[in-house]
Amino acid sequence: MADTVFGRILRGEIPAHRVYEDERVLAFLDINPLSRGHVLVIPKEPAASLDLLSDESAAALGRVLPRLCRAVIAVTGTREYNVLENNGSGAHQAIAHVHFHIIPKPNAREGLGVGWPMQGFDHAEGARLAAQIAAQVDRSGSRPPAPHDESASTELIRKLREEG
Amino acid sequence: MADTVFGRILRGEIPAHRVYEDERVLAFLDINPLSRGHVLVIPKEPAASLDLLSDESAAALGRVLPRLCRAVIAVTGTREYNVLENNGSGAHQAIAHVHFHIIPKPNAREGLGVGWPMQGFDHAEGARLAAQIAAQVDRSGSRPPAPHDESASTELIRKLREEG
Repeated sequence: MADTVFGRILRGEIPAHRVYEDERVLAFLDINPLSRGHVLVIPKEPAASLDLLSDESAAALGRVLPRLCRAVIAVTGTREYNVLENNGSGAHQAIAHVHFHIIPKPNAREGLGVGWPMQGFDHAEGARLAAQIAAQVDRSGSRPPAPHDESASTELIRKLREEG
Repeated sequence: MADTVFGRILRGEIPAHRVYEDERVLAFLDINPLSRGHVLVIPKEPAASLDLLSDESAAALGRVLPRLCRAVIAVTGTREYNVLENNGSGAHQAIAHVHFHIIPKPNAREGLGVGWPMQGFDHAEGARLAAQIAAQVDRSGSRPPAPHDESASTELIRKLREEG
């Protein structure tokens, strides 16, 4: 996939306020924070979106989230927070490299704004939909992304570039 | 910690439209969806918030996110989506059991609404803050939550109950 600002941070070409690093994961402060202590957690594997990330990187990323959240809470004193990972420019992704935000929510004004346009739910349609998704999970299993996902990744990067 | 509707789903006391299950994780449709294919992914470990979750459960949860995202994309045809995990009622958490939302974003109207009130950033203060968080991560490491976190969990549950 193409290079991003996070790729450059990973290679040490540009600086970042680092808070954690291991073999597969790097965490650093977001320099456009929504609140004090806003941290980004990224895999070293350069996947554009979460569906393109390997199981191993996703597990390593998941594993360090609780300790990073505890550290952010301890230092900021803010116990409430959102963890957010966006995929696609329409879903507010700005950089085509997977990143989880840890965003303290100290008050209504600061931190992530959450809009929640709830829809109706039909249980018969829900049962069909769940069965379809379940069947698809079984098939995709822990396989690496299929070839068609590469084009999806390219498409995502193109769209983000056009808009950025 | 106290029981929740997710605890009852995990014990099979109430039904859910299940899409995935393994030793540590369960995923099912959100019956108050923001868009078609809105899935919840929860650890079987009953932690009220992500900072209280064990490394092992967090890793298991992270590991299955990519394949679940791929399955939701394949079935819904929607390539853009948000992954969100809320902690605390002020941060839009409604049930005191860790849950990751996978929310397809088919268009501007459906799916997660994202408010992004960006703040300024001071690099000198950022360097100090990053050092403080990094030191705290080193100390908290992979330890289970300390005793004071239990009271925090109790407090969170109490607040959610009062508001729910």
